[in-house]
Amino acid sequence: MATQVASERVFNYSAGPAVLPVPVLERIRDEMLCLPGAGASIMEISHRSEQFIAVHEDAKKRLARLLKLGDEHELLFLQGGSRLQFSMIPMNLLRGQECAAQYVITGSWGKSALAEAKKEGAVEVLFDGAETNYDRLPSTSDLSIRPDAAYVHVTSNETIQGIQFSDDLDTGTAPLVCDVSSDFLHRPYDMSRYGLMYACAQKNAGPAGVTVVAIKKELLARSQADLPGYMNYNNHVENDSMWNTPPTFAVYVLGLVAQWLEESIGGLEQMHQLNRDKAAVLYQVIDNYPEFYVGHARRSDRSLMNVTFRFASESLEKQFLAGAKEAGMDSLKGHRSVGGIRASIYNAMPMEGAQALATYMADFAQKNA
Amino acid sequence: MATQVASERVFNYSAGPAVLPVPVLERIRDEMLCLPGAGASIMEISHRSEQFIAVHEDAKKRLARLLKLGDEHELLFLQGGSRLQFSMIPMNLLRGQECAAQYVITGSWGKSALAEAKKEGAVEVLFDGAETNYDRLPSTSDLSIRPDAAYVHVTSNETIQGIQFSDDLDTGTAPLVCDVSSDFLHRPYDMSRYGLMYACAQKNAGPAGVTVVAIKKELLARSQADLPGYMNYNNHVENDSMWNTPPTFAVYVLGLVAQWLEESIGGLEQMHQLNRDKAAVLYQVIDNYPEFYVGHARRSDRSLMNVTFRFASESLEKQFLAGAKEAGMDSLKGHRSVGGIRASIYNAMPMEGAQALATYMADFAQKNA
Repeated sequence: MATQVASERVFNYSAGPAVLPVPVLERIRDEMLCLPGAGASIMEISHRSEQFIAVHEDAKKRLARLLKLGDEHELLFLQGGSRLQFSMIPMNLLRGQECAAQYVITGSWGKSALAEAKKEGAVEVLFDGAETNYDRLPSTSDLSIRPDAAYVHVTSNETIQGIQFSDDLDTGTAPLVCDVSSDFLHRPYDMSRYGLMYACAQKNAGPAGVTVVAIKKELLARSQADLPGYMNYNNHVENDSMWNTPPTFAVYVLGLVAQWLEESIGGLEQMHQLNRDKAAVLYQVIDNYPEFYVGHARRSDRSLMNVTFRFASESLEKQFLAGAKEAGMDSLKGHRSVGGIRASIYNAMPMEGAQALATYMADFAQKNA
Repeated sequence: MATQVASERVFNYSAGPAVLPVPVLERIRDEMLCLPGAGASIMEISHRSEQFIAVHEDAKKRLARLLKLGDEHELLFLQGGSRLQFSMIPMNLLRGQECAAQYVITGSWGKSALAEAKKEGAVEVLFDGAETNYDRLPSTSDLSIRPDAAYVHVTSNETIQGIQFSDDLDTGTAPLVCDVSSDFLHRPYDMSRYGLMYACAQKNAGPAGVTVVAIKKELLARSQADLPGYMNYNNHVENDSMWNTPPTFAVYVLGLVAQWLEESIGGLEQMHQLNRDKAAVLYQVIDNYPEFYVGHARRSDRSLMNVTFRFASESLEKQFLAGAKEAGMDSLKGHRSVGGIRASIYNAMPMEGAQALATYMADFAQKNA
């Protein structure tokens, strides 16, 4: 069990699992053998222990404060990632409903969500951006939302394509179900608009292995009793996310990230401003060299989280990635379906990380344009 | 984010999440900010990165070696705990089958597994120990196993009741499906007997949030294509447990525990001997004071993992727990459905922990008997 420690951290633009705040990592490190008051690691204590319940409650309270969650929603910590939600959502909210669920497909994740919904009931596609390789969002006025839709499913940020809704959609009387996996907590929300909001944590809120779900209480009555137990939201609501053993370590880290957002950043307004500032630094370079850096997203639909662009040639891309790695900037390769470069600059990416990359990009363009 | 560190570790007899090897915790602590070679925490790197794939492969190889797994099985790392397996198993292995699945109910977990199976298809109960409050196992010869059963489901160790099968059941041509959540890796197995073996990690193999499944390849053909995506074993097999983002940190810890088993303990034979020795130390005290300590499990069915016993009075129980806590021994309270005391002495509990508790128990009996 010999330990070899490399202490040099790089700037890590991974699309997920992704960068976490250094103070959070330091706290986890310092408490690893002994959570204060527990006499054991956070991983070693029962989910029914007073120490873990305090951790769980703290995480819930902090997230509820950040989201300005009132009594309208239940907040759950689940497992299985967004993929399990892709099935749980239609199993709970579509089965037995008269009207179809409507899906807005703005990229790869929306497509995967749709594929699972089709197994469960009637589904309509309100928009599909395939024709332009998912480089743009629909304008809300173009969406024919039915007032009696079972729900309207939207992906707030498409990680692979780098496009993002900048505001909370108004779906009227149809419940909005929104996958915020890749931009959860990056800005304040008007939660009254969300029937169900869900996010796997590993992009913007914690480690892989915990999924946050906020669901309006009024929707819980739709779930049928014969659902597989884990798939029924009611089981998790009735047992405060402890119907089975929760992923205790992941919940602990989620709580520490929420604490960092509250205490070090100052809240979601401040986080939003910082995210806008970081993204502006990178998009500015792209706009300064429009022949050299070809952004994937339509300008008005650019993501604050994932900055995607291509070069004229693959050899330039390889050169760019090699030079970046040399300079301590990692995980910049884009997803195969879009190609090129993807710089993910989630909440925990400091401004220094955006600036370092922008400087490198400007230099690289000047040398190679 | 101020860090307050309490360094005093207690002996932790939690039934799960439970004790982990100290060298594993130290390694996690030392690598928390920077996984060697990655320039980032294990939590921050992509599951597609070469560094994580190396971690994932290492965990798989070590588990396969410990289990002596050949080509007959696929090894998967999933989320959702045993609870999700309670549904996934009948969804994959019972739907569309002609013959019922047969369940052996030896305690609380078996009952929960049965409840989910009933939602999916025809089920028969081969044995139910309810009459004696699950204090005993059936003899294998009493089980009317059908050769053409969809499968036979067994719980190898009932955590709450403290009873355990000491050997690999022979279910003939009917596939054995076994929940080994609370004694996984505590002894060597004859894996050829297991159609599907599954374990959530948080009792004997790692942190909460990852579930290990070993499934015979021949069983994979049973899964129907319209299953919810996450619930279909084939999706996980075809994508080497990366159909969705795996719980990367939990897989990393699982691999470190497997490494500790191989390198520090020496393998499952040695682990088994140590577990027998630890359990013997505790059961000896119970047997030395048979009027004072009332064991829950029938003697022949006693668990090596969870030692359960009661007192004549509740006040003695309170006094016992308070004194134990005072002496640095924690999480000894039994489950409400059985009452009394439960000392969980999983793989990572050192002999010193069993001895400390045995000494305390002998003293306590002498003073209070």
